[in-house]
Amino acid sequence: MMRTNKMMMMMKTTMMAAWMLLSAAVSGLQAEDGGMEELTTEKEAEESHRQDSVNLLTFILLLTLTILTIWLFKHRRVRFLHETGLAMIYGLLVGVILRYGIPATSYHNKTPPSCSLKVGPVSTVLLNVSGKFFEYTLKGEINSREIHNVEQNDMLRKVTFDPEVFFNILLPPIIFHAGYSLKKRHFFRNLGSIITYAFLGTAISCFVIGNLMYGVVKLMQMVGQLTDKFYYTDCLFFGAIMSATDPVTVLAIFNELHADGDLYALLFGESVMNDAVAIVLSSSIVAYQPSGANTHMFDASAFFKSVGVFLGIFSGSFVMGAATAVVTALVTKFTKLHCFPLLETALFFLMSWSTFLLAEACGFTGVVAVLFCGITQAHYTHNNLSAESNKRTKQLFEVLHFLAENFIFSYMGLALFTFQNHIFSPIFIVGAFTSIFIGRALNIYPLSFLLNLGRRHKIKGNFQHMMMFAGLRGAMAFALAIRDTATYARQMMFTTTLLIVFFTVWVFGGGTTPMLSWLHIRVGDSKALQEERRQRGQWEYCRVGVDPDQDQQPCGDSFQVLQGEGSEAEGQSKTKQESAWLFRLWYTFDHNYLKPILTHSGPPLTSTLPAYCGPLASCLTSRQAYEEQLRDHDSENLRNDADLTFMFGDTSITANGASGGGGEGGDGGGVSGWSVNGKRSASTSEEALERELDSREQELLSRGTRLVFPIEDHI
Amino acid sequence: MMRTNKMMMMMKTTMMAAWMLLSAAVSGLQAEDGGMEELTTEKEAEESHRQDSVNLLTFILLLTLTILTIWLFKHRRVRFLHETGLAMIYGLLVGVILRYGIPATSYHNKTPPSCSLKVGPVSTVLLNVSGKFFEYTLKGEINSREIHNVEQNDMLRKVTFDPEVFFNILLPPIIFHAGYSLKKRHFFRNLGSIITYAFLGTAISCFVIGNLMYGVVKLMQMVGQLTDKFYYTDCLFFGAIMSATDPVTVLAIFNELHADGDLYALLFGESVMNDAVAIVLSSSIVAYQPSGANTHMFDASAFFKSVGVFLGIFSGSFVMGAATAVVTALVTKFTKLHCFPLLETALFFLMSWSTFLLAEACGFTGVVAVLFCGITQAHYTHNNLSAESNKRTKQLFEVLHFLAENFIFSYMGLALFTFQNHIFSPIFIVGAFTSIFIGRALNIYPLSFLLNLGRRHKIKGNFQHMMMFAGLRGAMAFALAIRDTATYARQMMFTTTLLIVFFTVWVFGGGTTPMLSWLHIRVGDSKALQEERRQRGQWEYCRVGVDPDQDQQPCGDSFQVLQGEGSEAEGQSKTKQESAWLFRLWYTFDHNYLKPILTHSGPPLTSTLPAYCGPLASCLTSRQAYEEQLRDHDSENLRNDADLTFMFGDTSITANGASGGGGEGGDGGGVSGWSVNGKRSASTSEEALERELDSREQELLSRGTRLVFPIEDHI
Repeated sequence: MMRTNKMMMMMKTTMMAAWMLLSAAVSGLQAEDGGMEELTTEKEAEESHRQDSVNLLTFILLLTLTILTIWLFKHRRVRFLHETGLAMIYGLLVGVILRYGIPATSYHNKTPPSCSLKVGPVSTVLLNVSGKFFEYTLKGEINSREIHNVEQNDMLRKVTFDPEVFFNILLPPIIFHAGYSLKKRHFFRNLGSIITYAFLGTAISCFVIGNLMYGVVKLMQMVGQLTDKFYYTDCLFFGAIMSATDPVTVLAIFNELHADGDLYALLFGESVMNDAVAIVLSSSIVAYQPSGANTHMFDASAFFKSVGVFLGIFSGSFVMGAATAVVTALVTKFTKLHCFPLLETALFFLMSWSTFLLAEACGFTGVVAVLFCGITQAHYTHNNLSAESNKRTKQLFEVLHFLAENFIFSYMGLALFTFQNHIFSPIFIVGAFTSIFIGRALNIYPLSFLLNLGRRHKIKGNFQHMMMFAGLRGAMAFALAIRDTATYARQMMFTTTLLIVFFTVWVFGGGTTPMLSWLHIRVGDSKALQEERRQRGQWEYCRVGVDPDQDQQPCGDSFQVLQGEGSEAEGQSKTKQESAWLFRLWYTFDHNYLKPILTHSGPPLTSTLPAYCGPLASCLTSRQAYEEQLRDHDSENLRNDADLTFMFGDTSITANGASGGGGEGGDGGGVSGWSVNGKRSASTSEEALERELDSREQELLSRGTRLVFPIEDHI
Repeated sequence: MMRTNKMMMMMKTTMMAAWMLLSAAVSGLQAEDGGMEELTTEKEAEESHRQDSVNLLTFILLLTLTILTIWLFKHRRVRFLHETGLAMIYGLLVGVILRYGIPATSYHNKTPPSCSLKVGPVSTVLLNVSGKFFEYTLKGEINSREIHNVEQNDMLRKVTFDPEVFFNILLPPIIFHAGYSLKKRHFFRNLGSIITYAFLGTAISCFVIGNLMYGVVKLMQMVGQLTDKFYYTDCLFFGAIMSATDPVTVLAIFNELHADGDLYALLFGESVMNDAVAIVLSSSIVAYQPSGANTHMFDASAFFKSVGVFLGIFSGSFVMGAATAVVTALVTKFTKLHCFPLLETALFFLMSWSTFLLAEACGFTGVVAVLFCGITQAHYTHNNLSAESNKRTKQLFEVLHFLAENFIFSYMGLALFTFQNHIFSPIFIVGAFTSIFIGRALNIYPLSFLLNLGRRHKIKGNFQHMMMFAGLRGAMAFALAIRDTATYARQMMFTTTLLIVFFTVWVFGGGTTPMLSWLHIRVGDSKALQEERRQRGQWEYCRVGVDPDQDQQPCGDSFQVLQGEGSEAEGQSKTKQESAWLFRLWYTFDHNYLKPILTHSGPPLTSTLPAYCGPLASCLTSRQAYEEQLRDHDSENLRNDADLTFMFGDTSITANGASGGGGEGGDGGGVSGWSVNGKRSASTSEEALERELDSREQELLSRGTRLVFPIEDHI
């Protein structure tokens, strides 16, 4: 008790120290105001650099504060406020300080000099100032209202980042991490449902919200609340923005409480995929330009053009992402790069980044490409990396993701006060809240009904309610909204989006735990959890929900103890019958051809390809795969070690007729046999026997796990 | 053999694929040239973004190629070309392609419109283009010669990065990593010598090179080769640039060959510290403005002002860096953040970054602050982090360092062809090569002579020759040179610097291995190395020189086997006698007060602080430190586990009278006892005995190690 008090005191001291640093930074801002008379180029540049440093520093200190408070919350098991919600609160506070705490007289509050040009706007302009030439680059168009702002408060404008920063720097690591950590058993089992929610659902949501908002806008026009143009396409654009759900808060709590794996997979998968759909949808809507110019009414040819743009951008980005990941998989497979984890990690990072740039350079959407790159990397490249690199890459992207996400959320808080063109329209805001609710409902319930027609294991009512409830809006909605705030309509949308994000993250995010118990959704197993905690001893409190992957694993294991092992064979035959033909087709292709070509696992190509492909097959098959075949029985032992690299293990025996029972071990065992290689040669036969018994036991248990929720897709 | 061939083929295929991607990117560049008639803002911005993506992509593919080739070289044990040298070669190739392979007609090769202003240059300018307002920001002054270039080739200019990118993005992780990995036993033992080389040596080198170059410039004036002004201060500035050595190539080879630890520490320490000195020196020289305006001759008051600027910036940056690290240490000590490695790593990263920003915002030098922050973090915070976070932070900065370093070197290669204001002056170049040689010689040999007067264990002649030889120039010299290329003198310096970097990295870097054997410098121990290799089995080739820290460790161990254990006691008493009083004073202070306050190790403050500080002491001392005291004997066992966190272990018994023999164990044991906490409680007494015997043995051996080269400082 005394210890805790002392620690709390220390905690407060350090937070105060951090706050003092922040205040110092803020007063540094103020100090810059005075005494600048001669604006020479050098000093101007130096000042600007200093200002940038202070701005970044503000955000970094905000993030530091957030981290310390998160720790405190985790430490005390506070669950009603997630780290992103916290980041927003701190952002709001600093926004208030910047807005009202600092005198608005910046050091050049004179009107910037303007000059007239005949030609259209170009990227570079030369200014001739008394004989010397200075180069200026285009920052963007500003409308007449903003010219006033340029004059008024230079500092607030500087705190405002270029919106493209979100798309080019902050979103990619977040989205890539989402894709890279998708490798969950449950995800691929629910792939059909997830894709349905993501594509159909997002489209429904977009059009429902768009049309409802058009009604709201018409109402506003009638009431006379609308002072500028607001087209139907703007409403649809708003619909697209609002369709990108981001249940990061809910998922974090699911992780902590070890909630149902299938529900987790459905929510996580849907949110990841619908981000991609929403981005592409919004750019297709922007591309929708009816030939009749200013009408902004429906035009069939323009509509189909938009649909074409959607399909083109989406498939292009998908191909780009998958292709880069395949190249990475091939490079990591056919080089011995895994001996040098640093090189491997760097290569992995660079290739993943290049996906983004490649897609952007080709006119596709980088963020979408990065998502599919992440999924493909996790599916193939991940198996080729050394254990060390697997850890390193995961941790690297985890940190990047964490920093980027909290940065975005704290920026959101800040933007509520520092963004200078907010348009608060009560009718629009109320309309938006109502329509996103209706849009989400018309997405989840009808689609769940349709999906349940095909699924043997239905999506239960309480699961549907939870999915409805988990429709938070987050980073992606914000990034889409801030991207273009040039027109009146877009500014109103941006303000409304901010408020919706705040509300959903705080209210729905905070209400997740009560909601779970209210809906009677099973969260972990209390007995198994307590057992787990006991074993962890004093370190027990350390691991609550920090690392989703690591925590998900023990959760799965904890079910093992309780669920029956006898139904093993039954489950496998079910799996075979229940799998949809499309899924089975893809699985067989992936298992027989793609996995052997791109990774060291799977059956050797020489056995799956037709005979005339012999030389090619033996060239592409790695030595490890051959070895696999020879020691199929042996590798069976190691299957459970490779649980992470294991995906369709429970269907492989039946789906793959060619390689038979050996295929199953080969799938997961390929990698583990590979990394345990050196170790194994030294082990005695007794050890092997012991290990075999041990792993047999684990195998039984983990098969039991898979039967706990045998939900299969039937689409 | 066949396997290797197949792999080589695959390797070539993937390299070709990468190359084709690159070509595609380059042709993407070309494709953008045509068909753009209407330069609307949006399209312009989109084009610009696309262009940026392509540029970044080029560099990423360059780095990818470099990584693959590095792997090939490491795999085949090629040592004559280091990765940085390779990066430069690839950069050169792409530079040639960009320069000569692509038609120079860019899509707006018209002269940018210019307009005249009466007032001085300001940061923001509004342009009124037929009623619409556009905002432009200042990019910089360009002289009349460059206006031509602006017209001529837009693309080449776009490939050229803003020089501040190097100082604000690429250098900080490199320098921080250098500081953070400085934590080597040998470094602190040679601290005096290193500081002498870094401060005195850099000053000598700077003035020698500056004065010699002034002679060369005078000669050029006489011969008529000089077409513009070249002041004495410019020469001194060149001297400062050229004093920043960067023996990254040499050190990598040292690591691979397990070369002498003290020589490694001397070289590494000197290069890290003299980077800091060179940066501050160069900004002081820029700050030197004689009151007599255009004379650029010696002026006592201006000179002392410069000295004041040097001291101010250096100490300010030092204090900033150390202070941020101390705050981090305190936060990590008094919170239980170590339970959440992700939060801990993120906090560590953010705090380290904030050092940079804080220093820049206060007008100090961020890079220097970051260096001292890194050293302090390694010394204190590192001990408070969990084992997991220690690994994560190390690996995170390792990757960042690796990417940044190779990026800079490949950019250097590119810049030789894409930078448009090269001034190749043969006389200046030859003069520069000669003078840096003389400058280095006048730095190393006289200072070594002076140092040897005080050192019992002399810096031998062959060590001096090796230090002379290892005076490569690298990233820092380049970054300093490219920072300002506005004047004629600076452009000539930049060109010369590039050539010197190329030459030294390729020739001296490549000649390291022959030089080592020619100078008869012992590289590892062949017997011990072979033993080590045998144990590693087939993975033996995997570990050659990838991770300096990991490879350094076995190196130290390999000496153990051969060196006598009998001289242990003798060595310890020597250590006491030989330590310089200043060092001893600092060590005692650090061990008795700083370490206990900032970390969990060291003797508890209650025993080192005077009695009247009792309450404060018990508040600051962590529970762990108390536990240390109670089980001093026990923690002795664990000393060797904590070797990494162990710094002055060999002097602590004698230097710290208060805590006696127990202090030694406490120093290193604090951390390990802490992390092994849970494990240990379960161990039986037999196990403890066994471990004790085992570690005793190791202790003897590792003490033996320290006596292999008992070089101590005597300044």
